[in-house]
Amino acid sequence: MQEILDKIQLEIESYFGEGKVADYIPELAKIDPKQFAMTVRTIDGQEFSTGDYTKKFSIQSISKVFILTMAMRYLDKKLWTRVGKEPSGTPFNSLIQLESEHGIPRNPFINSGALVTTDIILNSGNDALKDIVNFVRTLSGNTKIDYDYEVANSEFEHSDRNAALTHFMKSFGNIDSNIEDLLDVYCHHCSLALSTQDLTRAFMYLANNGTNPSTGDTIISPLETKRINALMMTCGLYDNVGEFAYQVGLPGKSGVGGGIIAVLPRKYVVSVWSPALNKSGNSLIGTKALQLFTEYSEDSIF
Amino acid sequence: MQEILDKIQLEIESYFGEGKVADYIPELAKIDPKQFAMTVRTIDGQEFSTGDYTKKFSIQSISKVFILTMAMRYLDKKLWTRVGKEPSGTPFNSLIQLESEHGIPRNPFINSGALVTTDIILNSGNDALKDIVNFVRTLSGNTKIDYDYEVANSEFEHSDRNAALTHFMKSFGNIDSNIEDLLDVYCHHCSLALSTQDLTRAFMYLANNGTNPSTGDTIISPLETKRINALMMTCGLYDNVGEFAYQVGLPGKSGVGGGIIAVLPRKYVVSVWSPALNKSGNSLIGTKALQLFTEYSEDSIF
Amino acid sequence: MQEILDKIQLEIESYFGEGKVADYIPELAKIDPKQFAMTVRTIDGQEFSTGDYTKKFSIQSISKVFILTMAMRYLDKKLWTRVGKEPSGTPFNSLIQLESEHGIPRNPFINSGALVTTDIILNSGNDALKDIVNFVRTLSGNTKIDYDYEVANSEFEHSDRNAALTHFMKSFGNIDSNIEDLLDVYCHHCSLALSTQDLTRAFMYLANNGTNPSTGDTIISPLETKRINALMMTCGLYDNVGEFAYQVGLPGKSGVGGGIIAVLPRKYVVSVWSPALNKSGNSLIGTKALQLFTEYSEDSIF
Amino acid sequence: MQEILDKIQLEIESYFGEGKVADYIPELAKIDPKQFAMTVRTIDGQEFSTGDYTKKFSIQSISKVFILTMAMRYLDKKLWTRVGKEPSGTPFNSLIQLESEHGIPRNPFINSGALVTTDIILNSGNDALKDIVNFVRTLSGNTKIDYDYEVANSEFEHSDRNAALTHFMKSFGNIDSNIEDLLDVYCHHCSLALSTQDLTRAFMYLANNGTNPSTGDTIISPLETKRINALMMTCGLYDNVGEFAYQVGLPGKSGVGGGIIAVLPRKYVVSVWSPALNKSGNSLIGTKALQLFTEYSEDSIF
Repeated sequence: MQEILDKIQLEIESYFGEGKVADYIPELAKIDPKQFAMTVRTIDGQEFSTGDYTKKFSIQSISKVFILTMAMRYLDKKLWTRVGKEPSGTPFNSLIQLESEHGIPRNPFINSGALVTTDIILNSGNDALKDIVNFVRTLSGNTKIDYDYEVANSEFEHSDRNAALTHFMKSFGNIDSNIEDLLDVYCHHCSLALSTQDLTRAFMYLANNGTNPSTGDTIISPLETKRINALMMTCGLYDNVGEFAYQVGLPGKSGVGGGIIAVLPRKYVVSVWSPALNKSGNSLIGTKALQLFTEYSEDSIF
Repeated sequence: MQEILDKIQLEIESYFGEGKVADYIPELAKIDPKQFAMTVRTIDGQEFSTGDYTKKFSIQSISKVFILTMAMRYLDKKLWTRVGKEPSGTPFNSLIQLESEHGIPRNPFINSGALVTTDIILNSGNDALKDIVNFVRTLSGNTKIDYDYEVANSEFEHSDRNAALTHFMKSFGNIDSNIEDLLDVYCHHCSLALSTQDLTRAFMYLANNGTNPSTGDTIISPLETKRINALMMTCGLYDNVGEFAYQVGLPGKSGVGGGIIAVLPRKYVVSVWSPALNKSGNSLIGTKALQLFTEYSEDSIF
Repeated sequence: MQEILDKIQLEIESYFGEGKVADYIPELAKIDPKQFAMTVRTIDGQEFSTGDYTKKFSIQSISKVFILTMAMRYLDKKLWTRVGKEPSGTPFNSLIQLESEHGIPRNPFINSGALVTTDIILNSGNDALKDIVNFVRTLSGNTKIDYDYEVANSEFEHSDRNAALTHFMKSFGNIDSNIEDLLDVYCHHCSLALSTQDLTRAFMYLANNGTNPSTGDTIISPLETKRINALMMTCGLYDNVGEFAYQVGLPGKSGVGGGIIAVLPRKYVVSVWSPALNKSGNSLIGTKALQLFTEYSEDSIF
Repeated sequence: MQEILDKIQLEIESYFGEGKVADYIPELAKIDPKQFAMTVRTIDGQEFSTGDYTKKFSIQSISKVFILTMAMRYLDKKLWTRVGKEPSGTPFNSLIQLESEHGIPRNPFINSGALVTTDIILNSGNDALKDIVNFVRTLSGNTKIDYDYEVANSEFEHSDRNAALTHFMKSFGNIDSNIEDLLDVYCHHCSLALSTQDLTRAFMYLANNGTNPSTGDTIISPLETKRINALMMTCGLYDNVGEFAYQVGLPGKSGVGGGIIAVLPRKYVVSVWSPALNKSGNSLIGTKALQLFTEYSEDSIF
């Protein structure tokens, strides 16, 4: 396995310079694009890494998987009356489908859907910001994980599109919280800073039927785990899910910070990070690395 | 395995009466909805069935998988300049996306995409109708498989929507054949009549890295097999792919004749048939049966 | 002329009971639907009325014409880089076109467009609320005209859809003001309470090449007057402009408060009010009355 | 009046070279763009012209007004169950709205709508091609007017987009004729070759309450005349109706052959021709000339 990672490390360097880093908030635009990290961990506890695998980066939309998991723990079936399970076929922050579908987002991995799952957490009666960071710290076994407050504030100041989505859903009765509070929590969980090592460890429950293999804690049921993986497969990569399924062949979730996590159920979790993005907003080198990984390891879900 | 099928057979009977058969062509509207069949076959040759598993039915859109496989054998990369790999997010015969995306269908499993793959076969220089039926006969090992000419003619007479799609793509330069010939071949391959036993046997190559396990013939490469499975996962169930991934957790392809095939790579192929459809146009009882199947067998790709 | 109005008054009574009053804010939902008023005034100062023609009602979207006129006085050509001049083809508060057209509203008579023209007034450096009400008082010659603060507040509390539109346009850089301030001014000018007599008098400049015939004051140039009338013709009646042009044949502007104004250039202005709306959100009886008016007077722009 | 035309002729020459001729069929692409003609005729029989006003050109979509008039003579109210009266907000041959509105075109001046009105004429039981040309000959008083068979054939060979529209509407039950026959008649009436003098004379009934002022023949009723003018106002200029209303201020209809007709009800009809088109598919110099015409004559409907 380590050999495969070393080989990938060598190969991907030729792609440095392609793609471009997210520029919609100044904090993300400053990042050096020529960085790369990758960590694989199997359910029996073997871990392999390459690159800057302890360097923290902004996980951005990958946080949507944590938030969905938490929301599923609060609500079960009722959750799916407020958000769908289908790929959107349109870019990640589109208002078009939201309008024709009466304020019900297509799935929990587009912005509107994650605003709904965040709304559910806010309405749990607990301190949402504290709960979220604690959830991620426990999952990853790293108590130092925290929000990047500069990124969160920068994002909050550039959140007109998300404010539009939220007001729009509220006009259909699909948002309960105060909108400023909701956007604040949303921007914070997007700003969570983790390394590929942290991310891989945190998501091990998705490869292990819902149970954290290090601690034995049940995070969610096997059936719900299967469902999150299914949702990542069909909706996890913005409008690039088909291409990703085709090239990589694993359920995954990407963020505009350049991170991607992917899961081979009952086997391993793999995380990559490289800040430059392709046209669909997914890490260009990260996608390439995952493609090489399933090719060299000759294993995928397909 | 046989026990699981027997259990499913018992359970699904309570659903008879729900859903409704396809009524857009008279030949399909006549079918008795209270029928059911299911066949599973593992790559080491064990086969299990329940219900009317030798009764032939119209495979309709399931033929799109055979046609894609054949088109991939004729063309490789060039194919993907003429058809996309992403879920459509809109119903299976929609013109909307085709318009905004300049005549390039979203994927080969919606009607417009299958018209393009059929066009590729027509332009191979061979007798398309003969080639297609021979391909399916050889894959399934059943030389008696044939078109249902009544269904094909009935479909041809009701093909205004498909004619619209084809003329529209031709206006963008994405169709080469004569349109009447193309619609004729298209309606014929949709009318292919197979049993669940035939279908399961015919698709074994998708569970076996592209090689027919009975004959050892290589149909397509392992990489291409992975890709067809990935496409079925993200685009095989009309606008129900998310729900199907979530409930069943296998790559699959459905047809309005009431058939569905699904694949667990490196393990088995399963086919079901029951004519009554849910609102998305997929077999209602077939979907239920597959959901129970992955639940009872505690195995899926996720 | 008075005879025509009397005849219309008699005829429209048989329609009382059809349509329904706007219910999206509680203040409007309370209104008795069985009310009617109509005032015609010619450019040489003859005035004819019927019904409750001094009763004030909420002019709602009719205020968009005052706001556009004021915005044209502040900016000329630059205005048309921020808002278009074409009918929208979709309902009045749709986000769809705004998305595909990058935050530029189709025209100044849909909500998004009027939010842009209101933004222009807010950025003039003056006290917008004071300026707007003074403008309308001067035009109508009635110093008692005022905002209905209850309606304005009720509207502000139900302004999520307009907040969504505004945040969305701001994300494209097409809004300069603070969003809360903008929505506040917007809700106020929609709440302006005028009678049909007030409205008719206020809009006389549109029938008189831009000059108020009572005072001789030039409000806008003849060319700009022509343009406002043209915009009302193609965009003034939500998604009912074609039907209104066809049935009535005058440029006009409606509001969900049940008012409609219409102009026969160089001849007269006519206002009607009746609170029950048809499916497109225009006064049902008001539309009927205007249709009878152009039929009986055998005059329209066509 | 003649002075105004002479002044326009001088001014427009500086625009030669801008815009481009229609190139979707070879026959139209060949035309020299630097041509111009204009004819005005008042209802009392005065006629003024400039440029090549006897040179025939392909009237293309202007024929939709003749066809609508003929269809209204066959059917009255029933016509409006098959075609709408609202501006489309999208380009002239769009399938998108047709899909969401179940095969009912938005109005009779987009291609889909004119295919429906042509279908009505075909189903009248008479010889459609003969009837149409005779109707236009009688209206214009020029028995030499004819189809341009080369243009018609060229158009028929490039009619995939229109074939798509027609098959699509037929799938919704909104087309009765054989599709090839319908497209043949459609391509022929688009190919009708008239000069600006012919066009102006032929459309005089639209300025004269439905009666041909030269012959006294009633073509359609005053009410129907008002309605056709209203439809031209809101739907006659593709997706440029608002701009045209704003700049020119007359109901009009354009064609991609470079012709435009416009009407000042109860006063005159004006036709212009210049082959180079603006981005919306309307004659660039023709639009400019009409704008100057209403500016210099200080008269429009607004």
